[in-house]
Order: sequence, then C-alpha cells, then structure tokens
Amino acid sequence: MIQGEIITTGTELLTGQVADCNACYASRRLHEVGLAVERITTVGDRAPLIREILEQGLSRSQFIIITGGLGPTEDDVTLPAAALALDRRLVIHEGLLVRIRRCLAERQIPWEERYASLALIPEGAQLLDPGGMACGFAVKHREVRLFFLPGIPQEMRSLFDDFVLPSLVEWAGPNRHWVRRTLRFFGIAEAQLQSVICRIPDFQQGGLTVGFYPNFPETHLTLTMRGPDRQALEETLDRLTSSLAQEVGDVLLGSDLVSLEGLVGGYLKQSGLTLAVAESCTGGLIGHRLTDVPGASDYFLGGVVGYGNDAKRDLLRVPEAVLARHGAVSPETAREMARGVRAVFRADLGLAVTGIAGPTGGSPDKPVGTVYIGLATAQGEEVWRYQFHGDRAEIKTLTAETALDRLRRELKKRLA
Amino acid sequence: MIQGEIITTGTELLTGQVADCNACYASRRLHEVGLAVERITTVGDRAPLIREILEQGLSRSQFIIITGGLGPTEDDVTLPAAALALDRRLVIHEGLLVRIRRCLAERQIPWEERYASLALIPEGAQLLDPGGMACGFAVKHREVRLFFLPGIPQEMRSLFDDFVLPSLVEWAGPNRHWVRRTLRFFGIAEAQLQSVICRIPDFQQGGLTVGFYPNFPETHLTLTMRGPDRQALEETLDRLTSSLAQEVGDVLLGSDLVSLEGLVGGYLKQSGLTLAVAESCTGGLIGHRLTDVPGASDYFLGGVVGYGNDAKRDLLRVPEAVLARHGAVSPETAREMARGVRAVFRADLGLAVTGIAGPTGGSPDKPVGTVYIGLATAQGEEVWRYQFHGDRAEIKTLTAETALDRLRRELKKRLA
Repeated sequence: MIQGEIITTGTELLTGQVADCNACYASRRLHEVGLAVERITTVGDRAPLIREILEQGLSRSQFIIITGGLGPTEDDVTLPAAALALDRRLVIHEGLLVRIRRCLAERQIPWEERYASLALIPEGAQLLDPGGMACGFAVKHREVRLFFLPGIPQEMRSLFDDFVLPSLVEWAGPNRHWVRRTLRFFGIAEAQLQSVICRIPDFQQGGLTVGFYPNFPETHLTLTMRGPDRQALEETLDRLTSSLAQEVGDVLLGSDLVSLEGLVGGYLKQSGLTLAVAESCTGGLIGHRLTDVPGASDYFLGGVVGYGNDAKRDLLRVPEAVLARHGAVSPETAREMARGVRAVFRADLGLAVTGIAGPTGGSPDKPVGTVYIGLATAQGEEVWRYQFHGDRAEIKTLTAETALDRLRRELKKRLA
Repeated sequence: MIQGEIITTGTELLTGQVADCNACYASRRLHEVGLAVERITTVGDRAPLIREILEQGLSRSQFIIITGGLGPTEDDVTLPAAALALDRRLVIHEGLLVRIRRCLAERQIPWEERYASLALIPEGAQLLDPGGMACGFAVKHREVRLFFLPGIPQEMRSLFDDFVLPSLVEWAGPNRHWVRRTLRFFGIAEAQLQSVICRIPDFQQGGLTVGFYPNFPETHLTLTMRGPDRQALEETLDRLTSSLAQEVGDVLLGSDLVSLEGLVGGYLKQSGLTLAVAESCTGGLIGHRLTDVPGASDYFLGGVVGYGNDAKRDLLRVPEAVLARHGAVSPETAREMARGVRAVFRADLGLAVTGIAGPTGGSPDKPVGTVYIGLATAQGEEVWRYQFHGDRAEIKTLTAETALDRLRRELKKRLA
C-alpha cells in the first residue's frame, strides 16, 4: 500500500489564526481512494525547518504533498527550502512568467521584480497549471513523488482534485477504479441519517465507505467505492442512492454538487416560470443565492428587500391595516408580501420571508428565530411558520435555505 | 523565547474524518500569551510512530503538548508509547482508580479490566484532574515539560485552559507581555503592501512580527510585539499603524476586526443617515451584508433587486429612454438607479450597482466584470466605473465590497 505524508506550511497555522483545512481536505480525498497518509506536519514559514522536514519525508514516504509558501512575499520560503532539500536549481518557467505579466497588466498592478519569483520552479519539475496565476508543481525525486500546492484553500483544492489525485490514483494502479458520490440533505440530522443507513442492508456491504460532512445548514454524505469495474460501481451507487431516497423522502436534495439554488433554477427553467422574492430578515440573501447561478436572469426577475414597514407597504403593497394589526412578522404579512412581490414584478411565483434574526427584537410569543415563509402562485398563497435556533447569521442562513427548499418542493411537485 | 510543539494523535485525523481543532485551539491560545509553537505533528494510533515523534520532540522542544489516545480501547496507544519514550514505568493512580469505579457504577456500566488502564500514568507524572473521568497528566522529563491531554475537544480545552496554559505562562515569567493587532485593507495587493512596509523604517525594528493573511477580497495584516511593558508595546503599535495609514491612505479599513459593513453601519448611525440600495448584478449581496450587522434596521431601509429591465423601470424609476439608449449596464442607469432607490425609500443615501457578473453577457466595450456603482445623496449623484476580473462569485464579491467601500469613504469624509 502506498504511503505518503502531508506538510502544510504557514506561520498563521501555528498561531491558530487559520485552521489547517488543506491537510484535512487532502487526507480525506486520499483516504477515499485508498491512499494512506502516515503523518501530517505543520510548520511555520521557516526555510531550514521546511527543508529538514522535506528531507525526512524523502527518506520515508512514497509521496509528499506540501502546501503553502509559494507566493511572492518574503515569508514564502517553500521554494528555496525545496531547492536545498532536492538539491536542484530553481529555474524560471517562461510560459508562466508571460502569463503572470499579462495578469498583472490586466489588473493594472505595476510590475515588480519580486513577481518573477512566482514563475520559479525546481529544475525538472512539472508545472501544475489550471490556466490562472495560482499554479503548483510536481517533482519526481528518486522514487518519491512530491506535489507543491498553494496554501489558499480554493486554489489548493482545485489543483489537488485536477492534478494530484488523478496522478496518484493512476500510479497506484491503472486498473483500480473508484467512484464517489456526494448526497446532499436538508431537514434531517446527521444522527437520524446514520440510523436510517444502519437499517438499509445494502449499506452494510464491504468496499463501501460512508462519510458524513456537516455543511451547515445541510448535511452531506459521501459514498465511495473501489473495485475493478467502474460501471458496476456506478450501478451499485445508483442502487444505494435510490434505497436511501426511498427511506428518507424529500429531505434528499440531490446526488451531485448542484447547489439548492442551482436545483431551483433548473426547475424554474424547465417549467418556464418566473420568480420574484420579497425579503425582510434575510436582507437580500435569497436573491444573492439565486443570482449565484449563471443564467439566473432567465427566470429571476428581482426582488424587494423590505427591511422597514414603509417598504413593505409602499413597494410590496402590504396593507397598512395588516401591518398595524398583525405586525411585520406574521403569517398575514408574509402572505401579503408574497402576493405583492408576485404582482409588482408580474412574476409567476412570489416568495417572501419575514422573521426575527436577533439578537434583539424577540417577544414571548414571537421569540428570536420566528420566521414566516410565504409562497404566492396563480393558485393563491401558502404560508409556513418556523422556529429556528442560532445566532443572527445562522437564522438568516436557515431562513434562506428553508425558503429555497419550499420553492424546490413546490416546483418538483409541479414537474412530477 | 520558549518554544514547543504539539502532537495530535488519532487515525481519524489522517483520514480527514475529523478536522484537527485541538492543535488549532492550543496553538492559538499559546500564541496569545506569546508562547511559540514550532511545529504540529499529526499521526495515527500507532505506538512506534508516536514514540519516535515524542523522542524527537524531547530532543528539540521545551514543551510538548500531546492529545488523544488516552482512552480504554485498543487503539489508545499514547500511554505505552510515552512509557517507552520517557523510559518510565506506568503505575496505577489509586485515587483515580477509585473515581473511575465510582463513575462507572453511577452510569451503571459494568466494570471491565480494561478500565483500569484509564488510571495508569507514567511514574512521577502529575495528574491533571478536573474532577471527572477525563484526566490528563503532566511530566517534567529532563528540562522538557510534557502535557498529555484527551482527544475529545471539550475535555482537551478545559484541561488546557485550567492546567496547561497557566503552568506554561508561569514558567515563561509573569512579567512578559505581548500585544497583537490586525489591520484590514481593501484595494491594495499583498505585494504592494509589503513594498510599502519595507520602506517604513519603524517596521524594521526587532521584536515585531508582521503577518499577511489574504482574505478575499481584503488583505489582512497582523502586527505582534512582545516586551516587558504593555503600554509601551501598545504605543509602538499605534505609531506603526499611523505611519502605515499615512503611507497607504484610504485603503486601510481599520485596525480591528469590525467588518466593512459594520464600519459602514457605525458611520451611518453616527451621522444619523438612512440608506437604501439598488442591486443588479450582486442580486442582494449588499443588502445581505448590511443586514448581517445587528441593529441594521436603524439605518438600512431596504432595497430593490432589479435584475430585469422592468424592475429597473417600474420600481427604481429608471426612464425607459435611458435603458433603451444606454443599456442596463451603463453609468446613466447606475445614476438613475441610485437616484430612484433613494427617492422610493425616502432615504438619505441611495447606493446602486449594475454590471456584468458573467460568465456570459459581455461585449467588446463592456466585457464581463464591467461594473458601475452609483451613489445618490441630497447633493446629487456620483458614478464610478470598474473593471473586475474573476469568476461570477468573485465579481459579485468585488462589486459588493467596492460599493460598500465607496459608501465608507463618503461617510468618513462627511464625519471628518
């Protein structure tokens, strides 16, 4: 079995300012494909120490993944440390240098000599090039494979998934296949989900790894399988997914990495319906999420953030009497907001939320976390009440997720 | 300066199932009191490896904190590994054994021989006893202080705070002080900032640690100093902050961890002004950020997400002729949106953004990333054009941040 290690560098990791999510990410992905990590070492931006640990790694591991310290500032010392540990010169990668100059020019950042260091790689190394400025590189040194990746998690992950993992998997054996599926749930606790899985016989088979990843406010589950035949693996995962869907019902959002807003957007496109939203306590978060989906303008007409009562009355046509009698946080106001925004935007669907995000503003019968969600369609309006728990940000997140989920269920029903 | 290291054990940490929050917690707390951690090593539940790393640690560190592997199951191997590394016998702590028997009885868990191992500690070690079952222990071995803690984060933290930290702080000397400050910037690249810092003589003094933390779209910088006199340290950091502010000007957002929206909110409260926003390409993100601040309803009246042209015309009063002649993404439309939203909400300030977030919708003279920001006040309107680079999410983030930053500059000017 191939064994490797991970080295993460960065003084911020030793001062606790930043959690080391890169090591966690890489080790999880490696574990899923059956590659073992024997140790993770975290050190600061100190070249002698990085060199020492690299040299130790070279003497004991078959692969080394090292993150951080590839930038242009003085505390980026991974490259000189690697040059010493590997006993190789650093050379300028001309293609990369051209790209860096162009990127800087586009962003109107004046050229400085230090940026040239961004194009340095050890002699004989292979550039891991996703097409942007944040590259990594791979070196085979004696029998050890080394992968140098940037420390910024987004960049690290994309390079890891696109280059490092496929290369290690191929090295581990070309006939090995692994398939992985992420299932996303909203509205079921991890422990409940675990109980359900324990009850399904298919999930007890060998070769299957089940992973739980809380991803507030959703719960994500990964199913990973290894075997000689990719198609058989895919079929097994299809079967497992359907059994699970049958058990848990509508809390299963999907079997891939399409976001909830992407799912809702897909349904809206499919059904040819348009949407407008009226937001109070979420302050614009629902619109923000909906417009994260490219092409959202095809179905999302816009919204009103009616934070004050005036806006609810003037822009959303909520009658003054309703506001006066029932208050801004009430099923009646949620209903009127949904109806109003649908009318104002001449949309097919009007989605509205009103609630108390806290930390103040609660009362005994409407405590912090009280939220009403309204949905208006040509057939009339529906309103739901929720009681959420958490801080201001969590209540906003839960409200937006629940509103989008309500919409998803409604659209799914219509398309069924 | 006292230097130590952290060793975390547990196979679950190497499979990515659990993030290593213990190391992050301990290193942060140690950093806060000016004690340095030189490295963090994570290994699985393998006694030979733990022993090897402990032995290496004994030869290079002044203190070692090791977490995990103290439980009663087979994969808890820290204790036997420690016995070998320290060359000490393990002995039963009689007081602890009695407590364990009592605790099990209370929970009606039948006694098993393996529970006796929970009362084992290395000969000469001192029990770290919070009064429950989850104890740790401390050993002074030659000149190195070792602390063994449970792996469960809650237990680890309480023992760390109650025993480990006070003991290390006392050892380091009661007269040592340290101060730390985080400075937040927007609109300056990390490398540019570094160049500026290199030019300021005050920043070249000993005892000062400068750290850069990219925090898209902002750049964060920390200044840390240690010395015998807290007030002198604070004064030095004040002086450094002002010299830097003088050099970089308005790109310095602040010297603490108040967010940009918190800063804007504070200024609005101070000046007694109200705000409404008209968002196109950000889809609600600006309103979302503004309402993340508790009490935002005091100054934020609401907004309109005018994603389509109809909404811009009907709700934001952008004249049809302007839309037809200049298009939705134009300085003229941004101006009308700002003016319109200010009027509709009867707000003191109207902030508007319109742009092309991509990935499609660009043209040669208005490529993806073209954004107009408008600000309407009683004195009239101002409009700025920007050309951002990045994917859809990045362009939305940059647009929202820049709009809030424009507002911040305007409010700061008024309050000056």
